[in-house]
Amino acid sequence: MKILILGGDGYLGWPTAMNLSAGGHDITVVDNYLRRNISRDENSEALFAVPNLIERTKLWQKKTNKTIRPIIGDLCDWAFISNVFESTRPDAIVHYAEQPSAPYSMLNRLAAMSTIRNNLEVTANVIFATKEFVPDAHIVKLGTMGEYGTPNIDIEEGWLDVEHKGRKERFLFPRQAGSLYHTTKVMDTDLLWFYVRMWGLKVTDLMQGPVYGLETDENRGDETLFPFFNYDELFGTVVNRFIIQATIGYPLTVYGKGGQTRGYLDIKDTLQCVNLALENPPEENELRIFNQFVETFSVNELADRVQRVGKQYGLDVKIKSLQNPRKELEDHYYNPVHTGLLELGLKPNYLTDDVIAGIMDIVLKYRKNVNESSIFRGVKW
Amino acid sequence: MKILILGGDGYLGWPTAMNLSAGGHDITVVDNYLRRNISRDENSEALFAVPNLIERTKLWQKKTNKTIRPIIGDLCDWAFISNVFESTRPDAIVHYAEQPSAPYSMLNRLAAMSTIRNNLEVTANVIFATKEFVPDAHIVKLGTMGEYGTPNIDIEEGWLDVEHKGRKERFLFPRQAGSLYHTTKVMDTDLLWFYVRMWGLKVTDLMQGPVYGLETDENRGDETLFPFFNYDELFGTVVNRFIIQATIGYPLTVYGKGGQTRGYLDIKDTLQCVNLALENPPEENELRIFNQFVETFSVNELADRVQRVGKQYGLDVKIKSLQNPRKELEDHYYNPVHTGLLELGLKPNYLTDDVIAGIMDIVLKYRKNVNESSIFRGVKW
Repeated sequence: MKILILGGDGYLGWPTAMNLSAGGHDITVVDNYLRRNISRDENSEALFAVPNLIERTKLWQKKTNKTIRPIIGDLCDWAFISNVFESTRPDAIVHYAEQPSAPYSMLNRLAAMSTIRNNLEVTANVIFATKEFVPDAHIVKLGTMGEYGTPNIDIEEGWLDVEHKGRKERFLFPRQAGSLYHTTKVMDTDLLWFYVRMWGLKVTDLMQGPVYGLETDENRGDETLFPFFNYDELFGTVVNRFIIQATIGYPLTVYGKGGQTRGYLDIKDTLQCVNLALENPPEENELRIFNQFVETFSVNELADRVQRVGKQYGLDVKIKSLQNPRKELEDHYYNPVHTGLLELGLKPNYLTDDVIAGIMDIVLKYRKNVNESSIFRGVKW
Repeated sequence: MKILILGGDGYLGWPTAMNLSAGGHDITVVDNYLRRNISRDENSEALFAVPNLIERTKLWQKKTNKTIRPIIGDLCDWAFISNVFESTRPDAIVHYAEQPSAPYSMLNRLAAMSTIRNNLEVTANVIFATKEFVPDAHIVKLGTMGEYGTPNIDIEEGWLDVEHKGRKERFLFPRQAGSLYHTTKVMDTDLLWFYVRMWGLKVTDLMQGPVYGLETDENRGDETLFPFFNYDELFGTVVNRFIIQATIGYPLTVYGKGGQTRGYLDIKDTLQCVNLALENPPEENELRIFNQFVETFSVNELADRVQRVGKQYGLDVKIKSLQNPRKELEDHYYNPVHTGLLELGLKPNYLTDDVIAGIMDIVLKYRKNVNESSIFRGVKW
């Protein structure tokens, strides 16, 4: 399959590119280094430097003799994106090209507006370019479980059948996000759902939970092919962040009561899910939605696990409850359905103590690099 | 009350400005003439020329000795909008400043992208400017009944109580719009609802149906103070458009089966509703939603009424069913609740034959101006 990976330099984009290339697909990656630039501007750099995208594709070529074509540019620019679509004519598009940090989107007005602009305009351009150049292509869009928020009812897989005053209708499951970033993903869904109905596009929207990990089948043992590993408040997802905090003796930063519960997955499972989505495209006029995670746990449960594994390494891991800088429920009902991808064949990898230890083994080597001041800045919601 | 009217040059903005000024409020109007520019660029000009906004405020001053302050500029520009908010410090903001045409938003990619950008960025800037300069001010936002689409269940007033698997939650009523323009209004609601929850803003979102009419208490008999009257496919709402078609012998353009049903209101009722919203602000942290229309009828019913009134004028009004250029249900359930504004005291004006005749009396004088080619271009959805 000819696949275009938008945001191919990112934490998930690059591992996805290698994985699909290894699977025999013809891969083009596109990125404008937005994430790298923001990390540098905000002094929230990753744990170790990674080669730029063009260098990464050369390393991949050397290792596997397989080609990943890199294109650097801004997908908000129609002249650029139309050229990319016209010259590559993909069968499928994997769209990760968004400003991905919730705290960054809440940092200040400029960060908020750039998140709205980037995320909405790229999604709109992807829709217009698909319609113009490859109307039968399958768009695989990375959404987020955060679109749903934490409602007091079970979260269904994308849709909700409502019975009201004796009549029935099926709606998109009502969305109520907890950050501006997550709200832009809600808007993406609004936009995709509109154009699926109007233009018959084929779209899979993956409502993904927080991802952890570094190693995949493609980069195991080859650190030059690792993704960014962020541990800072802006870009560090909570599992990765807690593991780094444990290694440097920085108390695990639990916000408020710590009962915040989410659905998590290993980076290897993201790759499985994207493959399953690509292998099982929706029909025309269909917006297919999967809830993409394999298990749920609370921040407190996670902190306890990281503490326990840290002890095996002789680390004295403390847990510190901070006044929550965010407006969010700290103790809530959470029961999201996630059967769609399992039915397609997903084999879950769970967050065992061994998995935490595996990540710890890698990051311990780099702990000298940690910039403690970036771990908690208290961006207020 | 000090009131800022954004989009104060528009079909509703200018009548609102005069009405609130007559009511003793201190009014500033802001506009960038986006609507006038698009009308000219697309050769979809209004039935008669109206003075520019600065001239209008001078005419108003002369007639009433009351001042409406005009400011011309683009609310997408933070330097401009922050200056407007800082210098006026309004108690309330009436936000009409959006690209308001559904067909224009579907015309081509550039029109689509400019609709997304303008509508989202102005709404975001209004939120940021309110937070920064007047956090206690009341934002009255013009939404649209079109956000809900035409679901198979009763449309409640903004919210839906869902019982699911034995648990309960209250959600924003699920939205599923029928054009890109209407989808940007859904996104506006997403954004407002997010910042209401995060920052405690006070917002009223008025889900308005199609508006008709020209005359208000403030401009009756004084045509220099009339709003734009558009009859073209892009900017002409259906009642106004059918009345013009009747006067020039152009068959009434019914799309498809003509069973499309919507909730309508007289421009005088828009003014009543905005007044009621301003006089009854929500609490902090509250997004108050009203469904703003007074009666529902189908396109076929409307065509029949206009035909009947036309006969009284000796006009031979034909009705022509055209192949529908839009993707929409042409025959559907439609039962939206609209009690909120009635409970606050709205006294509805209905679309009687006399009201149609009143509009016809005015437009007959200008029928020589009609550009027939702009009535139907068949913008495809």
